[in-house]
Amino acid sequence: MITGKNYIGNVLSSIGKNTFKTFNPQLNKENKVVHTEASLIEIEKAVELAEEAFFSYKKVLGLEKSKFLLEIANEIENLGDELLDTYVNESGLTKERAMVERTRTIFQLQSFAELVKKGDWVEASIDTGNEDRKPNPKPDIRKMLVPIGPIVVFGASNFPLAYSTAGGDTASALASGCPVIVKSHPMHAGTGELVASAIIKAAETTGMPNGVFSNLNSKGIEVGETLVKHPKVKAVGFTGSFKGGRALYDLASQREEPIPVFAEMGSVNPVIILPNAVKHKSTFWAKQYASSIALGSGQFCTNPGLILGIKSNSLTKFIRNLGEEIIKIEPSCMLHPTIIGAYEKQSNEAKLEEGVTTVAIQNKEVLKNYGKQIIVTVEGETFLQNKKLHQEVFGPFSIVVQCENKAQLTKIIRNLEGQLTGTIISEGDDAVEFENSIELLKNKVGRLIFNGVSTGVEVCNSMVHGGPYPASTDSRFTAVGVNSIKRWVRPFSYQNWPNNLLPSELKNENPLQISREINGEKTMAKI
Amino acid sequence: MITGKNYIGNVLSSIGKNTFKTFNPQLNKENKVVHTEASLIEIEKAVELAEEAFFSYKKVLGLEKSKFLLEIANEIENLGDELLDTYVNESGLTKERAMVERTRTIFQLQSFAELVKKGDWVEASIDTGNEDRKPNPKPDIRKMLVPIGPIVVFGASNFPLAYSTAGGDTASALASGCPVIVKSHPMHAGTGELVASAIIKAAETTGMPNGVFSNLNSKGIEVGETLVKHPKVKAVGFTGSFKGGRALYDLASQREEPIPVFAEMGSVNPVIILPNAVKHKSTFWAKQYASSIALGSGQFCTNPGLILGIKSNSLTKFIRNLGEEIIKIEPSCMLHPTIIGAYEKQSNEAKLEEGVTTVAIQNKEVLKNYGKQIIVTVEGETFLQNKKLHQEVFGPFSIVVQCENKAQLTKIIRNLEGQLTGTIISEGDDAVEFENSIELLKNKVGRLIFNGVSTGVEVCNSMVHGGPYPASTDSRFTAVGVNSIKRWVRPFSYQNWPNNLLPSELKNENPLQISREINGEKTMAKI
Repeated sequence: MITGKNYIGNVLSSIGKNTFKTFNPQLNKENKVVHTEASLIEIEKAVELAEEAFFSYKKVLGLEKSKFLLEIANEIENLGDELLDTYVNESGLTKERAMVERTRTIFQLQSFAELVKKGDWVEASIDTGNEDRKPNPKPDIRKMLVPIGPIVVFGASNFPLAYSTAGGDTASALASGCPVIVKSHPMHAGTGELVASAIIKAAETTGMPNGVFSNLNSKGIEVGETLVKHPKVKAVGFTGSFKGGRALYDLASQREEPIPVFAEMGSVNPVIILPNAVKHKSTFWAKQYASSIALGSGQFCTNPGLILGIKSNSLTKFIRNLGEEIIKIEPSCMLHPTIIGAYEKQSNEAKLEEGVTTVAIQNKEVLKNYGKQIIVTVEGETFLQNKKLHQEVFGPFSIVVQCENKAQLTKIIRNLEGQLTGTIISEGDDAVEFENSIELLKNKVGRLIFNGVSTGVEVCNSMVHGGPYPASTDSRFTAVGVNSIKRWVRPFSYQNWPNNLLPSELKNENPLQISREINGEKTMAKI
Repeated sequence: MITGKNYIGNVLSSIGKNTFKTFNPQLNKENKVVHTEASLIEIEKAVELAEEAFFSYKKVLGLEKSKFLLEIANEIENLGDELLDTYVNESGLTKERAMVERTRTIFQLQSFAELVKKGDWVEASIDTGNEDRKPNPKPDIRKMLVPIGPIVVFGASNFPLAYSTAGGDTASALASGCPVIVKSHPMHAGTGELVASAIIKAAETTGMPNGVFSNLNSKGIEVGETLVKHPKVKAVGFTGSFKGGRALYDLASQREEPIPVFAEMGSVNPVIILPNAVKHKSTFWAKQYASSIALGSGQFCTNPGLILGIKSNSLTKFIRNLGEEIIKIEPSCMLHPTIIGAYEKQSNEAKLEEGVTTVAIQNKEVLKNYGKQIIVTVEGETFLQNKKLHQEVFGPFSIVVQCENKAQLTKIIRNLEGQLTGTIISEGDDAVEFENSIELLKNKVGRLIFNGVSTGVEVCNSMVHGGPYPASTDSRFTAVGVNSIKRWVRPFSYQNWPNNLLPSELKNENPLQISREINGEKTMAKI
């Protein structure tokens, strides 16, 4: 049952004065539950609890953390239809999508459970000492990754489950040994509370310390700001808009003790459709891209918002095809009136920029809060001159840029900002001929796709979801895949430490049977 | 021969107007060579060259980068006595120390050469695709670490070789595939230029692109500021003072595109001498610590500037012993008049703080610019109340804090700022009895030492040289050891990329014979 309260550790609490309701965009009306924003006292309490919890939680063995994560997955599944229905009521997304996202969320939790159970992720490394070395004895140095402390997680509006309360940021932080305080997303506060209840139950069942997780409601920016500025908070995970991510980054870097912020802020995900591909497969790719642009009403950070091609009759045909295909697609509900409002404003503004031609606009009569697909096109030079056209329009929108030639295409790529993904659509020798353009694109993206679409982020070890700024605030990390755990850990060395006082990961006898580097060689051996 | 000019790529250049000379603190007079500060035009040119060089250098194979790094080491050795003498003349340090540091610098270059020759460091990871997976085909995703772009390195005054022009930051950045622009340290601009000439020669011999390395002289802060704010610079490495490091961090985080700054800013390196150790080994540890505090005139970032003990007759005796031992040590020359000036000012101020008692002060007659050792002591409560006493005094100075009891010791540890190192001096059951205090100390440090001294940073894979802020600006990285390469790289994914267009590290046939993770398993197999 949704109470509208905050979880301050394992206690439901609502002593604050500000309240709010979530909104059902399908029905175009508010949902019933009243959510109470966390008060300063509750925020302070949550952080205090997290800091205290950290001292014991950081020492919890991988096997135990693994049970905790699996139990969170179980409890999320146990929420059954209440979770799915709340998700639908708060997002306008379908029940089918809710189920897919739940599966993904559970898979992520399971992946981290497996990672910490196996234990190798701590990158244990041992350089044994040598008393006889001249001129100085060589010390015994042993290193492993350790958690950095309480983490604040800001979930994304567009993924109420997989990138939210128990999403990738929370799962990776809990796996690393860091307590988590979630600043719940106001658009899906009910979904958030349900998932939070699952985490709290799991923490209790598996004996995790109180404070290992808290969930704070908020409508305005104050709760988030207070959390990010709190001296006991040691890092921040964020998925959302550029404006929001940058604001948090600035707050965090201006603290007396600056802390890392990993903000994934989306991008326009440029697609380069090369001459042979556009000539021979125009219809195929037009169909693929229409579907990718309209998917989930374009509400994905990997949505292809920018398509670059070189002027030709074939490109003209591709653009026409893309326009024809996209209006065949049924519009779908967007997440919230503020989101569709922003979409309509931004896409209209883009349409009206000088030199921009509208290729297609969905004209079907739709329900309120449904997003209408739009494709526009522009000349390369116009695009180069107008930075406004480089900005992400969050929704089912894409701009096709018609470059004069290869040189102009290359120039545009050189001038692009950082992106989550880049895509090359190639046929025959295209990719070889455009090797230099592709090489330049590599500097701009976190993931490079060949003959495919950027939507759909596979959860696997080799995935990079991140990229050069402003796609993320730190391109050295990924937000998806088990390596996302590295955002919350630091290396730590023991020098000449007695074997009995070392953590299990570094003991001579290797009791956890993990793979370690000993004097430069990977091994599972004892010492 | 030292020309006093800048290396703008492989060209010597001095079109700027500002000049300066280095200082010989042993002779207390300026050295002869006139160094010309880099002009804005030269800075711009160096950055432009670095960006252009990046496009080819990032693709240079590990084996070739390895030859480059080894050739730098050779060329540094070839500089022979000219380098050693310049080092001595610009630092006041001994020729013996110069040789030790040269050996370390060469060893670091060799370690990175070995790392990139082996090639495993890119953490290649492959998740193979599956066309038949339902509901969607599984894409083939392949990931590796790639360099992020031109890096600016600020060397340390106290390590003219090992943490400077061709020191750990430069070696790790060049190994990663990033061009480097060194903002040369004004105190050892001649040493810097000689080392720069070695790097340039090596780059030419091994066919590296012009611009892969530049060396810019500067006396003031403008050159460094301009570099850090330059849009084409992608990260910064710094070793030096808190003030300097924080200023660069602030500049970098306030850019339109914020960039990572790894600043190692030193610390007081707390030592906790536990009751049984102080009781049974007072003389031994007093001698060890006197020597560690006075080593190199205390000009190490790992200098033990804070010793914590619990009040007892034994502690009183230890403090007395420490004072007796430290004045037996011959004072040595400090790096520069500004450094000894700051040392005298800060140590005098600390001595005069309320509640501070001077235990020992070196009274020998010394040459100008020689640092006199000082030991002071203070009660735990006074230390807790006075944050000024927590600050690093750069020089042969240490403060012994006499805690009332275990609770006060624990409280002090809880209130410490981040540190490079922490040390536990223990005898018998000490470490077990003080387990909680040690656990708290772990949160504050990058490296924890047992029954030893913090000075002396072993260069090995398991070393962490870094730590929670303000020891460094990002505790998730180390500045020493081959893992320091991770500061300059980001993960990058290819999705469904054709085998022939993949980099060698990710090709099916594994032509480099590196260890890779394939579908979660470490292997050197082909696909």
